[in-house]
Amino acid sequence: MKVGVLGLGTVGGGVVNVLRKNGDSIERRTGERIQVVLAGVRNIKQDRICDTSDIELTEDPFAVVNHPDIDVVLELIGGTELSKDLVETAINNGKHVITANKALIAKHGNELIQLANDNKVRLLFEASVAGGIPIIKALEQGLSANKIESLAGIINGTGNFILSEMKDKGRDFADALAEAQALGYAEADPTFDVEGIDSAHKLSILAAIAFGTELQFDKVYTKGISEVTAEDIRYATELGYTIKHLGIAKRAGDAIEMRVHPTLISNKQLIANVNGVMNAVLVKGDALGTSLYYGAGAGDEATASAVIADMIDIINNQTSNHILGWKSQEKLKVLDADLIESEFYMRLLVSDKRGVLAEITQIFSQNNVSIESLVQKQVDGDNNAHIAIITNKILTRDIQAVKLAIEACEFNQDSVKIIHIEPLD
Amino acid sequence: MKVGVLGLGTVGGGVVNVLRKNGDSIERRTGERIQVVLAGVRNIKQDRICDTSDIELTEDPFAVVNHPDIDVVLELIGGTELSKDLVETAINNGKHVITANKALIAKHGNELIQLANDNKVRLLFEASVAGGIPIIKALEQGLSANKIESLAGIINGTGNFILSEMKDKGRDFADALAEAQALGYAEADPTFDVEGIDSAHKLSILAAIAFGTELQFDKVYTKGISEVTAEDIRYATELGYTIKHLGIAKRAGDAIEMRVHPTLISNKQLIANVNGVMNAVLVKGDALGTSLYYGAGAGDEATASAVIADMIDIINNQTSNHILGWKSQEKLKVLDADLIESEFYMRLLVSDKRGVLAEITQIFSQNNVSIESLVQKQVDGDNNAHIAIITNKILTRDIQAVKLAIEACEFNQDSVKIIHIEPLD
Repeated sequence: MKVGVLGLGTVGGGVVNVLRKNGDSIERRTGERIQVVLAGVRNIKQDRICDTSDIELTEDPFAVVNHPDIDVVLELIGGTELSKDLVETAINNGKHVITANKALIAKHGNELIQLANDNKVRLLFEASVAGGIPIIKALEQGLSANKIESLAGIINGTGNFILSEMKDKGRDFADALAEAQALGYAEADPTFDVEGIDSAHKLSILAAIAFGTELQFDKVYTKGISEVTAEDIRYATELGYTIKHLGIAKRAGDAIEMRVHPTLISNKQLIANVNGVMNAVLVKGDALGTSLYYGAGAGDEATASAVIADMIDIINNQTSNHILGWKSQEKLKVLDADLIESEFYMRLLVSDKRGVLAEITQIFSQNNVSIESLVQKQVDGDNNAHIAIITNKILTRDIQAVKLAIEACEFNQDSVKIIHIEPLD
Repeated sequence: MKVGVLGLGTVGGGVVNVLRKNGDSIERRTGERIQVVLAGVRNIKQDRICDTSDIELTEDPFAVVNHPDIDVVLELIGGTELSKDLVETAINNGKHVITANKALIAKHGNELIQLANDNKVRLLFEASVAGGIPIIKALEQGLSANKIESLAGIINGTGNFILSEMKDKGRDFADALAEAQALGYAEADPTFDVEGIDSAHKLSILAAIAFGTELQFDKVYTKGISEVTAEDIRYATELGYTIKHLGIAKRAGDAIEMRVHPTLISNKQLIANVNGVMNAVLVKGDALGTSLYYGAGAGDEATASAVIADMIDIINNQTSNHILGWKSQEKLKVLDADLIESEFYMRLLVSDKRGVLAEITQIFSQNNVSIESLVQKQVDGDNNAHIAIITNKILTRDIQAVKLAIEACEFNQDSVKIIHIEPLD
């Protein structure tokens, strides 16, 4: 198998390195040698993490996708413009394409997979979600007997690192983000990671594969972690919860929910104990029940592990195209965010006066929201108090109504914080 | 696809039930209808967990494996005698075989897989290890780019239930076993589960697939959980560990270790938090690093999930035969148990006299074993004391020498308990 690589950065370099060390055992397993023969790079002279002595380098990426000897193109340059052109050209030239590019698949996957099907080539993207964890293969093959009811994943390592730091060390968000940046886990502009866009890309891919629907990235309700405070984490801990940034996809009647947001989960859940930059995806199938897949969500060789596994699947003819590989897709409407049912955590800052708690509980009961538990604490050197509340399972619009009603009260001292709770059972 | 089932008990009944509820979506996914047309059962008149109105039943299992219309045979009767005959006959008749029978594969897998290869049919057994968790597919496909360095799994739900009960409720082994029997998790004769034989079957299968070697079940060092006491669990907890019954396979130079035994693992490890009857397998690959696969290790529909996934792989031509599917196998010798390197937990009961601790530490140092930590406790209403010790990483034969030396001392009041510790990092 002759391979052309677009991009020899972290992932591309990792692919070359892993093939160099494990090429023999892959050949022993498959009977075939995977050879990277050509790589498109931005600057031929740049230092790299891999040995390129037997790889032809070019600064013209189209030379890779148009090369007649190449069977498989690895798209590892990112972005959604040039990469789309290159992938389309490769497919039209009859080459299989493997990509780690979640943004490209989330935004243009429907048409690209159709194009791959029309050209009878594979377009595979195991590496686009949760790095090296073989979660796409698990959904497509291991769990193929199941009707998937829901999935919930920690699918952004940067965000999980920040929340883990905040919990373990009592840091606030800005501090933990600075640490993530210093360690190279977060970009200078961290928006994609901390505002949930990266997770939303990945969630839309997982949901499409789990439910056999088309990709619907633009319908994902997305909320980042930048508003999670050290106080929220402290109150959550006190109430028996850990705050994680989850991507959640769930059947809800004839529709599906797709949402990315900070979430309180019980400390007893295995996924609550997934810390640092690690990723994990919990899947609930109607036959298997709950299963969980955990591992490195990023890194050169971890991501390369998934890219190369896709190549081996092509060698063994062990895959059909994701999503549109289903013989017929189901049309599943995405549920409006207001209509999502959930338990909620609510945190208020109120003036510490007699009668305030009675007013608050009255607002809850007027909106038919029950309080399951409540913690109240005086704020040091202040006449204000924090109140943290756990509600019963209600519609999102009802908790929004409670929030608005409380924010209109004189005793209220700050915007009311709301975070979803997931039982994950 | 026309399917014949041998055995319509828990797993067979689960397969029929899952196919009945998810047959449409499986057809939507694959383009093919899976039809169970014939089932071999011991007693046609018996009540079952599944509707059999459209399935022909027979009390002659050979009628199933010899039936000309059947494409795939599911062997779900267990045992290693009749089931072997039936599987061989089915394969010789050109039928694919799927089995959940770990004992059959562990003992006769090498020859059966060879026979399947010779007859150009598939012999698949995802359900034989860790129930519905797609761990075999993960090792064969998802992690196929990796050289697997080690794996460690909780692969017997009964044993994990017992250890979880002992830890959570302070019960002793006999109590927890009785509870497991009352709940139907343990058999009347629990030997296979609690003495580790079932785990050893499964471990030999995982090791063969992970390392690309032949099955070597008879070489697994196997120790059960019946000697784990409530005291051991208390001391382990105090020292920051949880005791789990693990199956461990590991490269050690040119050899491999294969062992099943109670193991102390740090409470910080995710797998230490896998409780009750759940299973989990931790895999360390040289590219991906550590990944973990968690889910139900038993149960009718959970196991059916894996059996049906194997059928779907056959429909999609998405698999080659396990183990001997490798184009060439590696010969890896199994390391002698005495030569396994490990940290150890040791617990002693000694007379509580001056100078005893000095004698003990001298024995350790004479055998070049270092003590990493130590807890000593007076035994209530007694002149004896318990001492729990954590050692550094040493050869198993060295800790055995320490044990023998201590047991020869006058101060020693009971046989010295040794349990492996795994850092799993």
